Amino acid sequence: MIIVMAASATAPQIDAVVGRIRAAGLSEHISRGTERTIIGAVGDERSLSADMFETMPGVERAMRVVKDYRMVSREVKPDSSVVSIRGVPIGGPQLQLIAGPGAIEDAAQLNALAGELRAQGVRLLRGGAFKPRTSPYAFQGVGEIGLEYLQQAARAHGMPMISEILDVRLLDTFLEYDVDAIQVGPRNMQNVPLLRELGCINKPVLLYRGVSATLSEWLMAAEYIAIGGNHNIVLCERGIRSFEPAARHALDISAIPLLKRETHLPVLVDPSHAGGRGWLVPPLAAAAVAAGADGLLLEVHPSPQDAWCDAEQAITPAELQALQAQLQPLAAAVGRSL
Amino acid sequence: MIIVMAASATAPQIDAVVGRIRAAGLSEHISRGTERTIIGAVGDERSLSADMFETMPGVERAMRVVKDYRMVSREVKPDSSVVSIRGVPIGGPQLQLIAGPGAIEDAAQLNALAGELRAQGVRLLRGGAFKPRTSPYAFQGVGEIGLEYLQQAARAHGMPMISEILDVRLLDTFLEYDVDAIQVGPRNMQNVPLLRELGCINKPVLLYRGVSATLSEWLMAAEYIAIGGNHNIVLCERGIRSFEPAARHALDISAIPLLKRETHLPVLVDPSHAGGRGWLVPPLAAAAVAAGADGLLLEVHPSPQDAWCDAEQAITPAELQALQAQLQPLAAAVGRSL
Amino acid sequence: MIIVMAASATAPQIDAVVGRIRAAGLSEHISRGTERTIIGAVGDERSLSADMFETMPGVERAMRVVKDYRMVSREVKPDSSVVSIRGVPIGGPQLQLIAGPGAIEDAAQLNALAGELRAQGVRLLRGGAFKPRTSPYAFQGVGEIGLEYLQQAARAHGMPMISEILDVRLLDTFLEYDVDAIQVGPRNMQNVPLLRELGCINKPVLLYRGVSATLSEWLMAAEYIAIGGNHNIVLCERGIRSFEPAARHALDISAIPLLKRETHLPVLVDPSHAGGRGWLVPPLAAAAVAAGADGLLLEVHPSPQDAWCDAEQAITPAELQALQAQLQPLAAAVGRSL
Amino acid sequence: MIIVMAASATAPQIDAVVGRIRAAGLSEHISRGTERTIIGAVGDERSLSADMFETMPGVERAMRVVKDYRMVSREVKPDSSVVSIRGVPIGGPQLQLIAGPGAIEDAAQLNALAGELRAQGVRLLRGGAFKPRTSPYAFQGVGEIGLEYLQQAARAHGMPMISEILDVRLLDTFLEYDVDAIQVGPRNMQNVPLLRELGCINKPVLLYRGVSATLSEWLMAAEYIAIGGNHNIVLCERGIRSFEPAARHALDISAIPLLKRETHLPVLVDPSHAGGRGWLVPPLAAAAVAAGADGLLLEVHPSPQDAWCDAEQAITPAELQALQAQLQPLAAAVGRSL
Repeated sequence: MIIVMAASATAPQIDAVVGRIRAAGLSEHISRGTERTIIGAVGDERSLSADMFETMPGVERAMRVVKDYRMVSREVKPDSSVVSIRGVPIGGPQLQLIAGPGAIEDAAQLNALAGELRAQGVRLLRGGAFKPRTSPYAFQGVGEIGLEYLQQAARAHGMPMISEILDVRLLDTFLEYDVDAIQVGPRNMQNVPLLRELGCINKPVLLYRGVSATLSEWLMAAEYIAIGGNHNIVLCERGIRSFEPAARHALDISAIPLLKRETHLPVLVDPSHAGGRGWLVPPLAAAAVAAGADGLLLEVHPSPQDAWCDAEQAITPAELQALQAQLQPLAAAVGRSL
Repeated sequence: MIIVMAASATAPQIDAVVGRIRAAGLSEHISRGTERTIIGAVGDERSLSADMFETMPGVERAMRVVKDYRMVSREVKPDSSVVSIRGVPIGGPQLQLIAGPGAIEDAAQLNALAGELRAQGVRLLRGGAFKPRTSPYAFQGVGEIGLEYLQQAARAHGMPMISEILDVRLLDTFLEYDVDAIQVGPRNMQNVPLLRELGCINKPVLLYRGVSATLSEWLMAAEYIAIGGNHNIVLCERGIRSFEPAARHALDISAIPLLKRETHLPVLVDPSHAGGRGWLVPPLAAAAVAAGADGLLLEVHPSPQDAWCDAEQAITPAELQALQAQLQPLAAAVGRSL
Repeated sequence: MIIVMAASATAPQIDAVVGRIRAAGLSEHISRGTERTIIGAVGDERSLSADMFETMPGVERAMRVVKDYRMVSREVKPDSSVVSIRGVPIGGPQLQLIAGPGAIEDAAQLNALAGELRAQGVRLLRGGAFKPRTSPYAFQGVGEIGLEYLQQAARAHGMPMISEILDVRLLDTFLEYDVDAIQVGPRNMQNVPLLRELGCINKPVLLYRGVSATLSEWLMAAEYIAIGGNHNIVLCERGIRSFEPAARHALDISAIPLLKRETHLPVLVDPSHAGGRGWLVPPLAAAAVAAGADGLLLEVHPSPQDAWCDAEQAITPAELQALQAQLQPLAAAVGRSL
Repeated sequence: MIIVMAASATAPQIDAVVGRIRAAGLSEHISRGTERTIIGAVGDERSLSADMFETMPGVERAMRVVKDYRMVSREVKPDSSVVSIRGVPIGGPQLQLIAGPGAIEDAAQLNALAGELRAQGVRLLRGGAFKPRTSPYAFQGVGEIGLEYLQQAARAHGMPMISEILDVRLLDTFLEYDVDAIQVGPRNMQNVPLLRELGCINKPVLLYRGVSATLSEWLMAAEYIAIGGNHNIVLCERGIRSFEPAARHALDISAIPLLKRETHLPVLVDPSHAGGRGWLVPPLAAAAVAAGADGLLLEVHPSPQDAWCDAEQAITPAELQALQAQLQPLAAAVGRSL
């Protein structure tokens, strides 16, 4: 912690800051500059907060030196983590596509789609049983039966399955259906009770970024899961809220290299939700692979215009196949396989 | 729903759009302009979504005409609602201050503070037992015991009590302690399972705006509560995320008149969380009252610099008294009393 | 300047940083903490930049301690400045309204409007001769003749006149027409050649905030004018770009107290441009006065719906009169007169 | 133009809207829906503005159907434009790198750098003579002499040269030095007098996006140049302002495909300014190429840590060479050459 005193700070005010540092069990280091006195708190600054000092007279501001996240930081664990979803590695040299419908509709349709995806080489199946919707009048998902359909389709085709949880009370249900990776969507990124519960299981968690979360806040949310003991965390960038009305959200492409520097966790990108338009998926997917993403989450539907929700952003299996052909050489160009 | 066809749209493409409108049970109204053909869907547009049309060939874009929220809209209920929190009216001519510590620390301190607040004329007591924190290493609140302290202090001084809920599983606990109004914070604004449960009780709900929620998304969150049958909803503006680093968030002062036009629900402002600095509270509080807010939520602590969390934004009881003196004539100037 | 070394920084890397500090004529102050070594540069840090250090191996980040602006800062000049526009003081106990049409249309209309404004007690007249427009197809203002109309109307009614400059090459023209205060709009806030020229004259400058300018960037723009020798600078807040589509921009009400703390310059608010709707002007104007603004800029047009531009945001002279009646007690409540 | 009437609109209010449409020379088309009456204005809507209607009683909102830009739109010119900078094509199958120092320092250094760049196959040289800086105390560029150095270096190595203009009064100087493409930076994107002058010459213009400009505003700025007769316009994306502090700006990768759909103009990306860090340049450059950019603008300096400005974001010639090797297969993967 560095405390910058105001130009007008008096000696007693400086002494008071020093007193507070010592009271917290740290020692001070004072630097009297030309225009400002700066006080460093030497010791474990996690027992301090900027607030403790910024409310004291004569203090201009206080700044943390060490970041708040530890277990998810690359400083603590320099090697990149590989998270296994029922044997499929996320974060290694092989890029992973996680595909499936935004909302599960019926068993036969999902099963047929899973077969098509598997035949194309897609290794992971995702489908939404519970849908987070802005409007209470919008379709909210088929519910628990969707997990049953998903399980059938996934097991039939030997694909691990992924689904989004909205309600902490349904975690047991997700475990009963043996969902292989549990997705936490943007609206729940800071749902602390849910994060805590997910820290107590050992299923992989796909943690989406909130639409206006800073990278630091996002990593702190991951830290909530990690301190519970579950280190199987995969991050998923899906666009941030901006002033630009032309796309649903702005895919934050810089987040990929920035995260790769800060954390050892794998980073996926969801170009379907970011752009919100099917035709934007290929260029955004290509950009994500080129920038170093470990894989993609893609909404695929046999007939997007008939989809029960998010029709605009889904692509067809045929479009996915074309996309895979396009991504192949890009993956190779960045030293990855698809 | 208005569907704008692309300049290059063909007759069969227009026919397909018409077919889809009819299939949904509405009728079409076609306007062939100089540069574009525009198709209106006549009937209840809530059975349509823009997605249904924007994925069709030849369609440039589709726009809703009617807003999604109904029960909370002023169009449906033109008169302003007054929500009673255990007899204290929110939304009437009298402005309400809801005050108390960000985090409850101990029983004696809270009781003393409640006494001071009551003596100053504050009618509503708020205290946090469960704290939503970005960092898992930050103080998370004293927990359930805090509700007990709050109940004792509130009942001792005849003040209704308000506290924030983080976990849907604790709603029964909140009801057991007879919390008079339940606060939903910004991180939970779109926690749909929680909103649904709150729709099934009849306690007032204080619904905070998410830090990057549009007004429309916020009103849709309120609608989730209202459709469950609970109409005792109070909105609370607390700043939006912006690019400006000087304040924690940007208090969206325009939200007050914009909401007043759109919804009949009362609107409060929380200047403590918006600005994140105690010294910013008075000017922001004054602005909120002048712009038409129905009351304020204020963090008050006997000794902010010793507070266990959010020290920077709390004010002291003495500062609150000074603030009340300052707000008095402002309230009168806008035809309200304090 | 404080330089935080990475946890892994080596002794030679620390030495290199020290070498660079000394080379710039400052001295170092080293604090070896538990997790990080922190180096302070003692001396005039304005000869340093964060870049100089952040590109060096072993450096995690470098932070300025002193702000970049000096002449406009309250630290340098603790007393609030009062800027006189042809004898009308901006920044004193009297709040000022600056009113007039967004775009000047014709001489008679402007003259009549000026008479009405003057009769209502408005002391300053503004009118746009040159209009900055997003679209080249939109009305761009009547041009130089507008300054002539403005001069006639202003002088006829004894009101100082204010108009916006778009083109640095027209500054002489503005001086010829003896425009009493020159407005720099949001699009030109960082038009450095223009700011430099305005630093060389002694007419007051009304410097609007760019729609996404931080307060610091805005004050630096003011500093460009001040270092030229012109200290007659008035700041004008007019809303920042946000994700919210309901208002044109988000009036940044917190900017008023934040600026008042940082700078001695007067601060005005333009509620017409911020909200972009006539009906939003009264609540935003009231909020601005309550929060401590030194005055308001208001678009007033005899018949807004016939205005040649920005029709939506103008109010009528009758609405202005009602607004003045509403602002009167608010001004008194904050210790000002109107 | 579509005018949506309020639910409560009366027949005379509807008649008034119709009257206004007819007065502007268009005809109306009325659709009476279940909840709203919608009026379409048939004819050239460019003679109408939303303001004209939204100020009328009974009108809820008015929406344009046709976009404001014409000459730069793909609707008007479906084929992609190729802009030649002294014979080097921007927008064709060959991707172009435009490289050079952020700020020109001296003739020998620039000449040596140009030689190195040319030897690496870079075809276009950029260097800043006039630097737009937030702070008046920061280095503002060497000035006109910089254009002389640039000309010498560019001509010596047979590279077209590009430099940024800040001051409209210096356009003649730029033409005297025969600068081959003139860059307009983000701060000047809406400097209308400058855009107008650039519309009157035939040199290519590199139009940067303002840090908070929407794509529509940016294309309107390009339209200002195009209507003057200069169609040699190249767009350059360089990141938008966001709430995320970790990168300088958020590179808006979605802007590339969105622009490619809306306009026929070539689109470049500047990863140096977007990320603001040298180590972010390679992943962002790769993403830009993968997403379909027509080329890159890169800050290259022989010794970034000694650069007179923007040290942090420059890369060395050696790093550029490594980047080119990395981009080669990516370009091939998207069907382009480097």
